Amino acid sequence: MTQPPLLSRYRDMLRYDSVQSELHILNLWQFPSDVVFLRCCTARDVVAAVAQMITRERSALVFAAGYGLVLAAQQHAHMPTDTLRAMLIQTAEAMRQSRPHADAMHRLVDATLAVGDAALQQGTDPAHAMDAFITRRIAYLDTVSEACGRAAAGLLPQRSTILTHGYGSAALNWMLYAATVEQGRAVHLYVTETRPLLQGSRLTAREAHELGVPLTLITDNMPGHFLSRGTFTHVVVAADRIARDGTIAATTGTYQYAALARYHQVPVIVLGYDGPDAQFATERDLHIEPRNEEEVRHLAGIQVAPTGVPTYYTPFDITPPDLITQIVTDRGCFVPGDMANYHGDHTGAARAT
Amino acid sequence: MTQPPLLSRYRDMLRYDSVQSELHILNLWQFPSDVVFLRCCTARDVVAAVAQMITRERSALVFAAGYGLVLAAQQHAHMPTDTLRAMLIQTAEAMRQSRPHADAMHRLVDATLAVGDAALQQGTDPAHAMDAFITRRIAYLDTVSEACGRAAAGLLPQRSTILTHGYGSAALNWMLYAATVEQGRAVHLYVTETRPLLQGSRLTAREAHELGVPLTLITDNMPGHFLSRGTFTHVVVAADRIARDGTIAATTGTYQYAALARYHQVPVIVLGYDGPDAQFATERDLHIEPRNEEEVRHLAGIQVAPTGVPTYYTPFDITPPDLITQIVTDRGCFVPGDMANYHGDHTGAARAT
Repeated sequence: MTQPPLLSRYRDMLRYDSVQSELHILNLWQFPSDVVFLRCCTARDVVAAVAQMITRERSALVFAAGYGLVLAAQQHAHMPTDTLRAMLIQTAEAMRQSRPHADAMHRLVDATLAVGDAALQQGTDPAHAMDAFITRRIAYLDTVSEACGRAAAGLLPQRSTILTHGYGSAALNWMLYAATVEQGRAVHLYVTETRPLLQGSRLTAREAHELGVPLTLITDNMPGHFLSRGTFTHVVVAADRIARDGTIAATTGTYQYAALARYHQVPVIVLGYDGPDAQFATERDLHIEPRNEEEVRHLAGIQVAPTGVPTYYTPFDITPPDLITQIVTDRGCFVPGDMANYHGDHTGAARAT
Repeated sequence: MTQPPLLSRYRDMLRYDSVQSELHILNLWQFPSDVVFLRCCTARDVVAAVAQMITRERSALVFAAGYGLVLAAQQHAHMPTDTLRAMLIQTAEAMRQSRPHADAMHRLVDATLAVGDAALQQGTDPAHAMDAFITRRIAYLDTVSEACGRAAAGLLPQRSTILTHGYGSAALNWMLYAATVEQGRAVHLYVTETRPLLQGSRLTAREAHELGVPLTLITDNMPGHFLSRGTFTHVVVAADRIARDGTIAATTGTYQYAALARYHQVPVIVLGYDGPDAQFATERDLHIEPRNEEEVRHLAGIQVAPTGVPTYYTPFDITPPDLITQIVTDRGCFVPGDMANYHGDHTGAARAT
């Protein structure tokens, strides 16, 4: 394989065709058994796709929502400015309502709407302006993901056996690609299946397998057994959000594997993409979106728990900085206590690297 | 509920009808959605049921295999003694071959065959002798389970929040029944679903729910999150086998939750039934039966991992004595280091209790 797999670049997962006025979104519910793109011809189609979490990948979903506004603006370009503005505001609200707790999506929708509104005020094409804005954001994240993954690869020795949990997204793919394909290092990846949504089985295992990385898929209750046997040299997970103090919110289970890694003295590497959000100081700011507890009761449409039994599901948990060895970003590697230096003092980053 | 739920007594899970010459086995593949007994009219039916793990409960499966010999002897009582003996030996071998690694089943089949053979030599009815033998063994295990469960209930304070993993079988039911129904203590049970076979969702949650114990079903990656929040007062798990040094083999994941409990300073109580097997000195003797790795790839008949991705599944893992607070048996509670005293020095048991 001379290039990283499909999910390594967001620009390959979302395709906006401004000639046909269509958005094509990779359908991750059918992935990896089928590589199928969902064609959205209207903003309403995009709202439905976002509500169904068609991408099942947070960043891709965020960008899809933004493209929904582009689609709406392009298809209603004939409207008077005020009507078009009102329609865009309504579309943005429908997009937010489709996933009321998806803060990152809400922020991108707000930013995209502001770009469209500025274009309307300047008398330029809002669809074009918003398309250019989202395309830049995707290019930025693709650059960040590659830089973060490559920095993580730099931490791996000639031979490593890595436990990963959830789906580390593009940076994980880039780490594996750089370490194995480009640098010829030996990596064996142990992947937890990651209930209830099985990101590990469906995404991580599929991507690593496509890359040719030797891997073993295990259930979420098995990492401890392998840690007790000294199997892993590293634990590598991705942060969903990072606070300035180095606390992370990540796929539920990350805390448990980080604590087990600490107990067994195995280093924990966090793929931190573009670092902490400046607005998050500590754990208190890392709010966690509640999810439907039916996800624990069902699996692939099959009920796996008795009716009437209460279940609980938090999609993310909180891992404190003292359980993390390194947070790897597009600006290099940080010890968690230096995370706040990401936004300024780059000597901190250099020291940690 | 004035009595513990169905799975608390093995005599309710297996019914041998010597008049009709039929064995009825509770089908745990349909349980708990349906309470259905599989009717076995021949030893061949029993071999098939054991091969399919129709009981999905180790002890029930062991007893079912023994009853298969009873069924064979009763239905061929007209045969000449030598022919009957040869037929019983063949039936026992077919039973062993149905699950080549199920050591406990092999031992009961061997013991039952020896009882039948002794009856043949004495000119008495082998079916009757073997039936009585297995019935006594079931009564013994039912007594042990109740005593172990009641002893564990004695360790619980007025209010407790317990994490459990796998299915602790009858002793867990008795612990919950004695603590809540009989003694009016408040217990909230957190149950891991326990992939890949989902004993937690299917069995533990069902039984506790039937008992009216407040419970929360969680995925196998969530206990750490709750431990970090101080949710649990105790971790309660059941041993599959115990060595004399207090090491246990238990449902995979037990090690990981015991290590996490230690890290968070929460006591770990092991339901130890009738204590260590005298032939197991240390971990070295606790051989673990390999299982079909397809169990990780599938769930309820649905493929949940990509074809070609290697998986690994060990049904049991090893938890060392230093991670266990108490091992509870029918003879009371032991600190793991005193486990060897189970077979003799009862003052040791008394001290630990």
